[in-house]
Amino acid sequence: MLFKNITILDENLEVRENMYVGITKDRISYIGEKEPAEDYGKAYDGKGKLLMSGFFNAHSHSPMSLMRGYGENMMLQDWLNNRIWPFEDHLDSNAVYWGTMLDLAESVKFGTVSISDMYYFCPDMAKAYSDSGCKGNISRSIAAFVEEDFKTSVRGKECIEFFEKYHNTDEGRIKVDMSLHAEYTSVPGVAKQLADYMKEIGAGMQVHVSETKKEHEECIGRHGKTPTAYLADLGIFDTNATAAHCVWVTPEDRRILKEKNVTVACNPISNLKLASGVCNAPAMLSEGINVAIGTDSVASNNSHNIFSEVKTFALIMKCFFGNPTLITPKQAIYAATRAGAIAQGRPDCGLVKEGNKADLIVVDISAANMQPIHDLLSNLVYSASGAEIMMTMIDGNVLYENGEYTRIDLEKAVFEADAAKNKILKEL
Amino acid sequence: MLFKNITILDENLEVRENMYVGITKDRISYIGEKEPAEDYGKAYDGKGKLLMSGFFNAHSHSPMSLMRGYGENMMLQDWLNNRIWPFEDHLDSNAVYWGTMLDLAESVKFGTVSISDMYYFCPDMAKAYSDSGCKGNISRSIAAFVEEDFKTSVRGKECIEFFEKYHNTDEGRIKVDMSLHAEYTSVPGVAKQLADYMKEIGAGMQVHVSETKKEHEECIGRHGKTPTAYLADLGIFDTNATAAHCVWVTPEDRRILKEKNVTVACNPISNLKLASGVCNAPAMLSEGINVAIGTDSVASNNSHNIFSEVKTFALIMKCFFGNPTLITPKQAIYAATRAGAIAQGRPDCGLVKEGNKADLIVVDISAANMQPIHDLLSNLVYSASGAEIMMTMIDGNVLYENGEYTRIDLEKAVFEADAAKNKILKEL
Repeated sequence: MLFKNITILDENLEVRENMYVGITKDRISYIGEKEPAEDYGKAYDGKGKLLMSGFFNAHSHSPMSLMRGYGENMMLQDWLNNRIWPFEDHLDSNAVYWGTMLDLAESVKFGTVSISDMYYFCPDMAKAYSDSGCKGNISRSIAAFVEEDFKTSVRGKECIEFFEKYHNTDEGRIKVDMSLHAEYTSVPGVAKQLADYMKEIGAGMQVHVSETKKEHEECIGRHGKTPTAYLADLGIFDTNATAAHCVWVTPEDRRILKEKNVTVACNPISNLKLASGVCNAPAMLSEGINVAIGTDSVASNNSHNIFSEVKTFALIMKCFFGNPTLITPKQAIYAATRAGAIAQGRPDCGLVKEGNKADLIVVDISAANMQPIHDLLSNLVYSASGAEIMMTMIDGNVLYENGEYTRIDLEKAVFEADAAKNKILKEL
Repeated sequence: MLFKNITILDENLEVRENMYVGITKDRISYIGEKEPAEDYGKAYDGKGKLLMSGFFNAHSHSPMSLMRGYGENMMLQDWLNNRIWPFEDHLDSNAVYWGTMLDLAESVKFGTVSISDMYYFCPDMAKAYSDSGCKGNISRSIAAFVEEDFKTSVRGKECIEFFEKYHNTDEGRIKVDMSLHAEYTSVPGVAKQLADYMKEIGAGMQVHVSETKKEHEECIGRHGKTPTAYLADLGIFDTNATAAHCVWVTPEDRRILKEKNVTVACNPISNLKLASGVCNAPAMLSEGINVAIGTDSVASNNSHNIFSEVKTFALIMKCFFGNPTLITPKQAIYAATRAGAIAQGRPDCGLVKEGNKADLIVVDISAANMQPIHDLLSNLVYSASGAEIMMTMIDGNVLYENGEYTRIDLEKAVFEADAAKNKILKEL
């Protein structure tokens, strides 16, 4: 496919107008001001459109789309104890597959191309990714309340088998990361063994860190150190690791995160909704930490519209840290694209660059809410609703165009997800 | 027109499924579970759709759409002194007309039916409202730095002439309110005369109150009272008044606002973006103050997508005031609909109720991001993107349906607004 006369955000996130971008198989094979000599077959008229990298969602629990709006205006522990955990107790393969599929339908519609996804029933999640053509770093979240031998434990075996069977499948679209759920849901021996295994196989890591003040302070009470210091000492960050939330991390924690090259996945909407607080992304960015953006689950968001997340990310930092100059539009777009690709160990993703994977979105910049244009990046961050996504392409495959899905049967996904939800509600 | 088998949010904001809603001329003439005997002509299939009141935007400056994204990441005074005010100095009738028209195109697309609008070149704004079929309370914002006789002053005469010519025109769609810009931009004598004139003619009032800490504290320094107490003493609230922002108001100020029946227009996104702070809407609601939602101008938002504003309103209160149980979905929807209609002196608007004005929107609730439904109000507040608006109807006229405008020439509005913007940039 050849995009003609289209505006692009290039690899430096600079706006370039009237460009030609050619796609060959799964990669961007040409970017230039002139029409290439090569015949690309299908042409796409780019007038009034922007071509940019799709979004890399750095933290999610996709099957929880089944719990969208289930338990509102509740205190965190009440919500977990009386809504989320009882519901999750009734999940099965079918529910997780359709919950994931519905989530991917929503994600693709709003321009997400890849997700760092932490949950369980992982083979069912992987099947939904595979069937839909989406990219994802799927991880089996490990909680362990008693010391045991990780590799021979039920969870450990599940984890190892999932990694061996699924890592780098679907032409690399599916990657398998390791995941320690969090400090407060695991004993140190198992956490250490998981870190050792992760290093042995060279896998990535997804872990919750200092999401709430309670969690942060109780860790200090238990271990005499912050969650960041505790996890670093166990070796959990000795890989390509993503620490989700980091709302309560200290300056010393940030020094550790920087030293260990950890990506911070900031989830501004979920953190606001659960009243957890605000991650100090401006400080992290100024210290050179790779800050990416996650949606967390739909159960605490309640959407996977990354445009909404990007806007909230850029807004909340200004007010919470009392300075309207904080977070530029370019920083916000970078966090939602390239920073997430780096977190997922996908160095050839997240930038519109020759040779990179063709994980692209087309945005309608002629819509009423996107005009006039003084600063296109600012319009993207603050003015876009998500409705402007005209196309989502992953590895060169068009998965969504003009409101239609090419691989996902939306009606079936909605029906099956609703049926799975209703079945569980009946059982409760 | 007859909406058939449609889900509605009724006058108590309760969800009722499979309903029939009939529209006769500009009003809702039938709501029932059974198909009415009367022949309504055109039928609308409501399967998978929600019919609810359109949004009443309680605070805006619509022609500022021309300044969307003009001056980002700047301190408030720097932004005003070096971007907004120099640009505004070059505005003319044509620029204001097309700026307003572009703004209305965006507003209607995202389900807004009526706007409390404060600016100047008001006859040009009124023409755009009239040509597009939109509702609005338009006000000529009065700033006065020297004492003078209001009624014979240039601004006073402009204000009086605009009221006499335009108030309650277009079958009541256009109303004219008075507007004192703010305490810090006016001298007390003129403010008092404006309040007296407002009472004489029975007009409403739109005024900025305690948006920033600086403004709030400097008023106390100048007058020995808060802006709220100062304005109340001048009589500015002795009408149907809307106080925009109220970020820094005190508990005593809230007592005055409640006693005077003032509507507080909360503008969460603009207040975050300019790092002004967060209006204590939860306290106001618990004290019985009418809290409505405004977008403020596109220059500090940068969108007029009320779904985005409603979500931010519900989110920010939880985190800022440290309690996830604050602001229910119903409170948020009420604030964006009925509370705004009350603020605008439109008692027969803002609720789906027999006899009320047909200011309605149809929302696609079968979209991937709106499913499954545990709690429809929660999905509306947190999961909708704005793309789900299938129809916007004002006074029984369909102004927008399935992406198409019936009265606004979008392409022309975008072209003319862009040309007006470019002309001003050249002059600067």
